[in-house]
Amino acid sequence: MNQPGTPTMTTQTQTCSSEEKATIGIGLLGLGTVGTGVYKLVNRTPGLDVIKIAVRDPGKERPGLLAPDQAKLTTHVDEVLEHPDVAIVVELMGGMDEAYRVIKQALSAGKHVVTANKMVIAHHGPELFALANAHQVNLLFEGAVAGGIPIVLPLKVSLAANRIEQIAGILNGTTNYILTRMEQDHGLAFETALADAQHLGFAEADPTADVEGHDAACKVAILGSLAFGKPFSPKDVYTEGIARLTPADMAMADELGYRIRLLALAKPWPSSDNTQGYDIRVHPMLVPADHPLAKVTFENNAIWVQGDAVGETMFYGKGAGELPTASAVSGDINLVAASLASHQSDSPCGGHPTQHPGMRVSFASSTPHPIVPIAETTNAYYIRLTANDVPGVMGALGMACGDCDVSLHAVLQKGTDEATNSASIVLLTHCVQEGKLQAALDRIRALPQTRDVQTVLRVFDSI
Amino acid sequence: MNQPGTPTMTTQTQTCSSEEKATIGIGLLGLGTVGTGVYKLVNRTPGLDVIKIAVRDPGKERPGLLAPDQAKLTTHVDEVLEHPDVAIVVELMGGMDEAYRVIKQALSAGKHVVTANKMVIAHHGPELFALANAHQVNLLFEGAVAGGIPIVLPLKVSLAANRIEQIAGILNGTTNYILTRMEQDHGLAFETALADAQHLGFAEADPTADVEGHDAACKVAILGSLAFGKPFSPKDVYTEGIARLTPADMAMADELGYRIRLLALAKPWPSSDNTQGYDIRVHPMLVPADHPLAKVTFENNAIWVQGDAVGETMFYGKGAGELPTASAVSGDINLVAASLASHQSDSPCGGHPTQHPGMRVSFASSTPHPIVPIAETTNAYYIRLTANDVPGVMGALGMACGDCDVSLHAVLQKGTDEATNSASIVLLTHCVQEGKLQAALDRIRALPQTRDVQTVLRVFDSI
Repeated sequence: MNQPGTPTMTTQTQTCSSEEKATIGIGLLGLGTVGTGVYKLVNRTPGLDVIKIAVRDPGKERPGLLAPDQAKLTTHVDEVLEHPDVAIVVELMGGMDEAYRVIKQALSAGKHVVTANKMVIAHHGPELFALANAHQVNLLFEGAVAGGIPIVLPLKVSLAANRIEQIAGILNGTTNYILTRMEQDHGLAFETALADAQHLGFAEADPTADVEGHDAACKVAILGSLAFGKPFSPKDVYTEGIARLTPADMAMADELGYRIRLLALAKPWPSSDNTQGYDIRVHPMLVPADHPLAKVTFENNAIWVQGDAVGETMFYGKGAGELPTASAVSGDINLVAASLASHQSDSPCGGHPTQHPGMRVSFASSTPHPIVPIAETTNAYYIRLTANDVPGVMGALGMACGDCDVSLHAVLQKGTDEATNSASIVLLTHCVQEGKLQAALDRIRALPQTRDVQTVLRVFDSI
Repeated sequence: MNQPGTPTMTTQTQTCSSEEKATIGIGLLGLGTVGTGVYKLVNRTPGLDVIKIAVRDPGKERPGLLAPDQAKLTTHVDEVLEHPDVAIVVELMGGMDEAYRVIKQALSAGKHVVTANKMVIAHHGPELFALANAHQVNLLFEGAVAGGIPIVLPLKVSLAANRIEQIAGILNGTTNYILTRMEQDHGLAFETALADAQHLGFAEADPTADVEGHDAACKVAILGSLAFGKPFSPKDVYTEGIARLTPADMAMADELGYRIRLLALAKPWPSSDNTQGYDIRVHPMLVPADHPLAKVTFENNAIWVQGDAVGETMFYGKGAGELPTASAVSGDINLVAASLASHQSDSPCGGHPTQHPGMRVSFASSTPHPIVPIAETTNAYYIRLTANDVPGVMGALGMACGDCDVSLHAVLQKGTDEATNSASIVLLTHCVQEGKLQAALDRIRALPQTRDVQTVLRVFDSI
């Protein structure tokens, strides 16, 4: 444990004659829940020393802050960025524009940067990685995807020899919590499950970013970029949320042997053997009940990675939260610190900050690589509709599908409503191009027997 | 892709004037199934070049070997170890004594070593890590534990800020396959499931190392050493196998809401807040059916890691096999290569091989750290026994337990056999020290009503 207030020796001030082991100076931007967690973990790590902490309100009560560190607080970000003893800047301010500006400034000043900011990495990653490379410093972001779950480092290093065939992630804890509740409390409406999640602190007052899949889209754009070495923009990621799912869908999925999960997918298109593009998207899917992803419940996250050598592998854990995210951020800090310490011992009298070998991110272009349009992707589908309960309905549905090259895997008629003379029908298709499926849906909607197409979902892991 | 036969530039022969990008020379020891997989993956990685390959039988047909590389084969390990262009030695010979000798020789010669040899790392790790540190080279071993699953790097780097509270691993695919088969085919005997596993290539002709838990003991000794920074000897790991489990135990576990898994445990003892020792062991356990580890089936492996910051996390995948293990080995090779390449670009005219920052393993002592004796560990227990079907049995059992401080959580009498006038009884205890449980078992066995205590299992994740 470092003694706060003790003079520290840093990379910049180190002298050759000293026998003392140098410490690495840390500058914190933000001291919210994650920041406080990082502060605690850094404080118990030998060789690291928090030099300066930028906060919005220095007068706020902070029970986690050691008394002597009160003097390290500042409202001026520049005091952190320009402090000569700060070697690693840890950005935990949140938001996008200011965080982006600050990270850019830090990298340009030759500081290493560790961040958990998925928005900045997803939207400005290529520019910032290029800047980091130009200045030979690290920009690490393990905490930006799936909280405490180590996925960036394994994907970047451990699985580097693989051609990645598919990534399928449950990357948003809020939506997984809501789906698990709806799955376990039969009949529970989306709105009620969301309200419960908000009450428990698993969902924000404005849940749009989570519920509509935008949060997961940022994260899967980052994972896709790491896996395929191309920059992808989250704006190009096709996104559907979970707000329109009903208890009837949960019940039907269960009966068919599936669970519904909001999955973030990234894969080469049309296949890893013949890569012509990349298929990256976020939407709810039917997942076979015995698949490991179907068993990920409540606020947990998981990332399923298939590689041509490693086969199928999965990383599971808490996707958010103060300490899990702080764990990931601190892992990155330790990695940079090890690199700096090793550099110091190599050339004690000089040298400049170096990038950690294996941690360099580089893309051939900073222009986002296009993503295959959803209409060109291939999926199996679940279609739930109501139709008039009259003879010939099944035949008409079958014809509508067949005319568009959509082949049916299963057809279920579940119950008829005598009062309205209607039948609830579920179709499960074989794999087909989305464009053809949409054409079939247009025909189905136009059938005189069709009352309403309620839900269309894609099916995971289908052939 | 490297062109075989092309002259390569290596760390040793690089000159400053050359604009050509240097390649890193790889020496392979062993070209069996994993070796062939590594050869394929290395060959498709730019910047890596296989220089020499040591094999036992150079005349053997090797369909995976490119024709020009036939000339790289040798039966003399020294030709690989002493080749000036070999920077990284990849040991995939298997066995223990020769592999140990060869790794030692390679490290002493200043070569980086990558191995998947769990026996050598578990038994000789401390000595070899010290040697690697002394020569400033890497000794990496991701493939030695849980095949393709990235666990060494995440544990060493990503989770480094955590105090590890518990590791619980399904580290042996053979035994997990057998247990899954017994669980799913009601009534299937251990011997039949083992024969099936052997037939399918999931178990060896002599299955002792897998079935008795010795294989898992090696792996958990390595994981424990990484997590707690102390060297542990696999010889000190308490080990029980799965050979005595019966269909009756599978059925009873299922009825009680559990699955039986061969778990490898490593945790601070008595707790992570008050660490006085380390509790490391391998034995079958009852795992609650809704726990992620219970859902790991067939030949898959998984490692459950609890840290004080990250919370509960799990790493899942194929624990063995040609390509998964080759994936892990190649990840390590790439990591060393990145380190060498970065070192070259830092100081193109000189310098020596350096250790990869963050990858250094060091222990205060090379003497194995003691492991807490099983009698001092605390567990909940499942006890299955048969007793005479007479009044007073339950009372006698309860007294025998109570006298030894063993408190019962549940007691089940499952069926009576009228022919033999016996009853099958299961006791589930609360957590208690193993020594007290053994004393209670002695009393139970001595009861006049007891016919036989068939099975005693510990319970995972119990309070």
